[in-house]
Amino acid sequence: SKKKLALEMLSSWVIYFFIGVGTAFLAAGVQISVELIAHQKFELIKDYFDKCDKEGCLYKPVLIWMGINAGITLVGAALVTYVQPMAAGSGIPLIKSYLNGVRVPGLLSLRAFISKCVGVVLSILGGLACGKEGPMAHSGGIMAAGLGKGRIPWFGKDINIYGLFRNDHNIRDLVAAGAASGVSAAFGAPIGGTLFSVEEAASFWNTELVWKVFFSAMIACFSTNVLLSAFEGHPTQLSNPGLVRFNVFPNLTFDLIEVPVFIFIATIGGLTGSLFVVMNYKLTVFRQKYLHRKKWIKVLEAGLVSAVSAVAAFLLMFSVNDCTEKHPYSHHAITTKLGCSGESHNSMSTMFLTTPEGCLKSLLHDPLEMYSVWSLVLFVVVFFLLGVWTYGLSVSSGVFIPSLAIGAAWGRLIGLGVVQLFPDQAKDVGKYALIGAASQLGGILRTTISLTVIIVECTGDITFGLCIMISLMISKWVGDFFTTGLYDMNVEVSGIPLLSWEPPPLCEDVHVSDFMSQPVMTLLSVERVGHIYDCLSGESFNGFPVIEQDPNYDLMYRGKLKGIILRHQLLVLLKKKMFCPEGQLPAASITLKDFENPYPVPQRLKIQDIELSDADKQCVMDLTPYMNLTPYTASISFSMPRVFRLFRGLGLRHLVVVNDNTEPIGMVTRKDLAKYRAEIKKGMLHMEQLTVENR
Amino acid sequence: SKKKLALEMLSSWVIYFFIGVGTAFLAAGVQISVELIAHQKFELIKDYFDKCDKEGCLYKPVLIWMGINAGITLVGAALVTYVQPMAAGSGIPLIKSYLNGVRVPGLLSLRAFISKCVGVVLSILGGLACGKEGPMAHSGGIMAAGLGKGRIPWFGKDINIYGLFRNDHNIRDLVAAGAASGVSAAFGAPIGGTLFSVEEAASFWNTELVWKVFFSAMIACFSTNVLLSAFEGHPTQLSNPGLVRFNVFPNLTFDLIEVPVFIFIATIGGLTGSLFVVMNYKLTVFRQKYLHRKKWIKVLEAGLVSAVSAVAAFLLMFSVNDCTEKHPYSHHAITTKLGCSGESHNSMSTMFLTTPEGCLKSLLHDPLEMYSVWSLVLFVVVFFLLGVWTYGLSVSSGVFIPSLAIGAAWGRLIGLGVVQLFPDQAKDVGKYALIGAASQLGGILRTTISLTVIIVECTGDITFGLCIMISLMISKWVGDFFTTGLYDMNVEVSGIPLLSWEPPPLCEDVHVSDFMSQPVMTLLSVERVGHIYDCLSGESFNGFPVIEQDPNYDLMYRGKLKGIILRHQLLVLLKKKMFCPEGQLPAASITLKDFENPYPVPQRLKIQDIELSDADKQCVMDLTPYMNLTPYTASISFSMPRVFRLFRGLGLRHLVVVNDNTEPIGMVTRKDLAKYRAEIKKGMLHMEQLTVENR
Repeated sequence: SKKKLALEMLSSWVIYFFIGVGTAFLAAGVQISVELIAHQKFELIKDYFDKCDKEGCLYKPVLIWMGINAGITLVGAALVTYVQPMAAGSGIPLIKSYLNGVRVPGLLSLRAFISKCVGVVLSILGGLACGKEGPMAHSGGIMAAGLGKGRIPWFGKDINIYGLFRNDHNIRDLVAAGAASGVSAAFGAPIGGTLFSVEEAASFWNTELVWKVFFSAMIACFSTNVLLSAFEGHPTQLSNPGLVRFNVFPNLTFDLIEVPVFIFIATIGGLTGSLFVVMNYKLTVFRQKYLHRKKWIKVLEAGLVSAVSAVAAFLLMFSVNDCTEKHPYSHHAITTKLGCSGESHNSMSTMFLTTPEGCLKSLLHDPLEMYSVWSLVLFVVVFFLLGVWTYGLSVSSGVFIPSLAIGAAWGRLIGLGVVQLFPDQAKDVGKYALIGAASQLGGILRTTISLTVIIVECTGDITFGLCIMISLMISKWVGDFFTTGLYDMNVEVSGIPLLSWEPPPLCEDVHVSDFMSQPVMTLLSVERVGHIYDCLSGESFNGFPVIEQDPNYDLMYRGKLKGIILRHQLLVLLKKKMFCPEGQLPAASITLKDFENPYPVPQRLKIQDIELSDADKQCVMDLTPYMNLTPYTASISFSMPRVFRLFRGLGLRHLVVVNDNTEPIGMVTRKDLAKYRAEIKKGMLHMEQLTVENR
Repeated sequence: SKKKLALEMLSSWVIYFFIGVGTAFLAAGVQISVELIAHQKFELIKDYFDKCDKEGCLYKPVLIWMGINAGITLVGAALVTYVQPMAAGSGIPLIKSYLNGVRVPGLLSLRAFISKCVGVVLSILGGLACGKEGPMAHSGGIMAAGLGKGRIPWFGKDINIYGLFRNDHNIRDLVAAGAASGVSAAFGAPIGGTLFSVEEAASFWNTELVWKVFFSAMIACFSTNVLLSAFEGHPTQLSNPGLVRFNVFPNLTFDLIEVPVFIFIATIGGLTGSLFVVMNYKLTVFRQKYLHRKKWIKVLEAGLVSAVSAVAAFLLMFSVNDCTEKHPYSHHAITTKLGCSGESHNSMSTMFLTTPEGCLKSLLHDPLEMYSVWSLVLFVVVFFLLGVWTYGLSVSSGVFIPSLAIGAAWGRLIGLGVVQLFPDQAKDVGKYALIGAASQLGGILRTTISLTVIIVECTGDITFGLCIMISLMISKWVGDFFTTGLYDMNVEVSGIPLLSWEPPPLCEDVHVSDFMSQPVMTLLSVERVGHIYDCLSGESFNGFPVIEQDPNYDLMYRGKLKGIILRHQLLVLLKKKMFCPEGQLPAASITLKDFENPYPVPQRLKIQDIELSDADKQCVMDLTPYMNLTPYTASISFSMPRVFRLFRGLGLRHLVVVNDNTEPIGMVTRKDLAKYRAEIKKGMLHMEQLTVENR
């Protein structure tokens, strides 16, 4: 047993190491393929623009642009929609729900992995206003789960060298590490990535686990650095800590008198952030009602958005016609003349003939005079609307980068104002663009701690980090006054029974008897198969209390609680025919492996799949060897907050409610708790009962 | 109630804000007074050295140095020893225990605060090998608790404007924020400080709380910056993010081929770290046995160490006689000739004529040729021994800075070797000194995540942070192979029942019946005062199960569990004479305030202080209105890990064990759980039963 323990310890470190390395390969692969192909695409479009600007055939590049965008996006959307719809969006709300303890079927499947990774490359190449960080976290999580299970299902082979990581709990830990590694690789933010996982995931801070997650995240960040540096031809000189580092700001000092400006920017971030959430909420509801009933409509909508993105970009470039002779800060930037003469080029082309990530970096680092006020204003409006429209499409896409780009643009705008007002003090707008980007993201997402740390790590400057913290904090406060964050809104709309951190306030007087499900279906420790079958068919609970039958009792199904047995266990027992006529011993035998084996998808085994003859139904099954003999219970007098803390503190999915005689009289599931939610709307606290699914 | 909730929310933010500001004032005050006075002291000694070097009266400065050191340290040690012994050492192990849920009487008292703050200034001025970061965390925690209670006891006045923060739980949250602010102010590491609190404290990650803690830490860091910048005369140009920032390393790039060197350094850090712990452990046991039986011996020992420190410093400076013409990197550095001629000065004087913090910075930043190999070797040996001897003295002192300085010295030594071997590639030793410092600290403390983040924030360079993480991780692994960390060793020696993160391994077969305390003393819901008195006198438990008396039962004190009542509540009820002869109603009345009022020191009310007449003892007391009606319980069949998770997940101090009839048959306290501890010694896992106190 000691030897097994040491082996377990060692192999878990190995697994966490490979999670980091695997995620890094993934991140580097996505990054390199996006960069290479996107550059080709924009070079092509630029060449046509340059040619047609003189020849007056501008409709040509626009049509080509639209065609490329729509074509690629349609493939990406079809991949997601038809192969695995779980891969739509950023994946972070779903990963969050999964880590919170909700069952999300299909989330960690191979199909989701392929749709997610390939899908995000296609979305970005398709010119949508989206980033790749959310999808990175999701696919990191899938990879981690896959590594943990040690199984390559599509070769029909099982390379299960270690049976250690098959239980629910361990897989969840691995997914947390994978998500952290994904964030870490994407942003070069190992601390932020780790905190992201902890904040969204583990209700229970476990130093041992967090240390392992941190290790994965660190390895991911490091390996990404090595891989990308190797791609650039200098594998040992590490210069690429993450995919979306904001690059070095040469001059990030600040003066105390600038803080009010930052607070002003943060307030705007909170306001516009809630506007984004509200608009996206309305759109999501509209989509659920009308658009997303047919799969082909989903695919078509995505194609439409990408084509509109191309047209909008062209119209902005063409109509504003903001010419500049300044060179963009990046050597890879693609610019076109498009109406500009002499040495100058169309400044807006720097923003649009690149990925959203390149656009963000341009806005942060390009020289002061590069963009005119009008360019920025129009960019903000258009990109904001495109961002709202894009999030929620049936494509694999993240919302980090577009949010940051929008914020950077209007932050830059405010920076221009400051430079106008105080020409002696202020010389650079990059600082304001950075604060704007942070505030906008904070206003939209509100992920608090991890977000702050991620952005601090992205800038690589800890002193200035204080300003970023202040702006994120204020944008969150302002935003929270109006709406919840984008991810929470997502979760709410989809009816996932997510438990918050603390019991909802104003709930002290709600008692367990008010919200438990009753009457509860109980089983005897030696039970007739027919009754088990009826229970499984009639109830959707995932656990059933097992009672001891007391001959003195009148009621057949009243008795002291002896244990709890899971739906899944009952299904396996029925499937394996572990029963026999009364008084005999069952002929079949069962091992622990039989319960574990169908692990990744236990929910696939359904009661409808099990066929029992009438003779079978008259048999009895002895549940004693299989049930959990020491379930956690709640007494009937427990209050809501007390039950809540039990669920949250111990990570429960269901809880048996017993009376003074330890007789089960009810069941509480996550659903029962999640439907109570307090919400702050316009500064007032409301108590709501939501409709949630039973997962 | 909604209004109250809003008020509570707002006032809690205000409190957390002031915790940050208060800690910053504290940190800045300590820093400024240390810097000013220490500079005076060392200038004085330097002058004597310069004079006596020529005149041959070197015994004079040595005697003066010894005298100053011993004098100051004696005062500091007396302050700690006689005023509040809880203020001894770094305070971090105690804060950790308190946050873990252990009662530590006196830890948060005003006396501890004064002894800690003044004591740490005196310890550093007294020339001990110690730092001020641990004490900073402790005093930040005390200040936070004081702010929360809103009470200034020594004016005999109660400025309790808000009664919101008086319960155990809230005070603990505040202390976590205070400790985080202390670390944040000390190192300019708000993220690291927050993680420190979380890692040591909250077993339950609560985003709401962590966000507030982060807020405090941020405010503390920011305010310290403003205060110290103001002290330097430029309050709005912020340049002092923390007290012990490592300052900027101009050139912290690294190549992949350097990583093996870092791993080598980290291994040495782990080895020397465990050596430090082992030596200090032996010393602590020796002290407990022989030295620390009398208070005056404690004080004397501290004085002796400080005098020896002065002598050792002098002997090193004098004997090595390492002369250099290089200028130290800091303008404030004090150097003396001491045997050197011409333009050169004694290089070792840069290390010793300063605080340990200045010494650390010298070792990290001074030019390559500044210190000879022999100087560094001797410094390491002497400072290592002084460090071991100092930690555990009855003075207020931290172990961070000396550990870092030792590591920086031998890291620099290895760096010199690397420069010798690869003169073309390696030009600077600062990098190796930094890795050495991190490894040494990691090898001694093993605080994993928070430590890594603190050091990354201290250097302000995130790319290089990866190397620091690797070295900390490896030094921890190597160290863990031999011993536990210094703080854990401390806790173990003092017998504090600290619960680890996970249930100890190999405990699945231990059941609650094996370790619960039985028979349990139960009370009836209407109970005779005499029996209550006997229970309180005879048992040290902090909670007593209350049962319903069943007339059908033979046994008087067997019955269904109705609730649990705390020792403290019973004491208050007895004190207030809330009882009456059977059949009557009690004359006295009691309010919630009576239970809360003696909050800060409920343990002061003792059963011995309560006097009851024989008539009183015949009275009865109705416990129903006061008891907790829904205590958490464990069934007799629960296994050790299951009980452990209940304690850890719900933060319990005691748990009633019930049988199938919900009759209490035993009690489990933290002590019962903490005595099981698995330990890895020399790579093998052992199962131990420790002796722990019942707190």
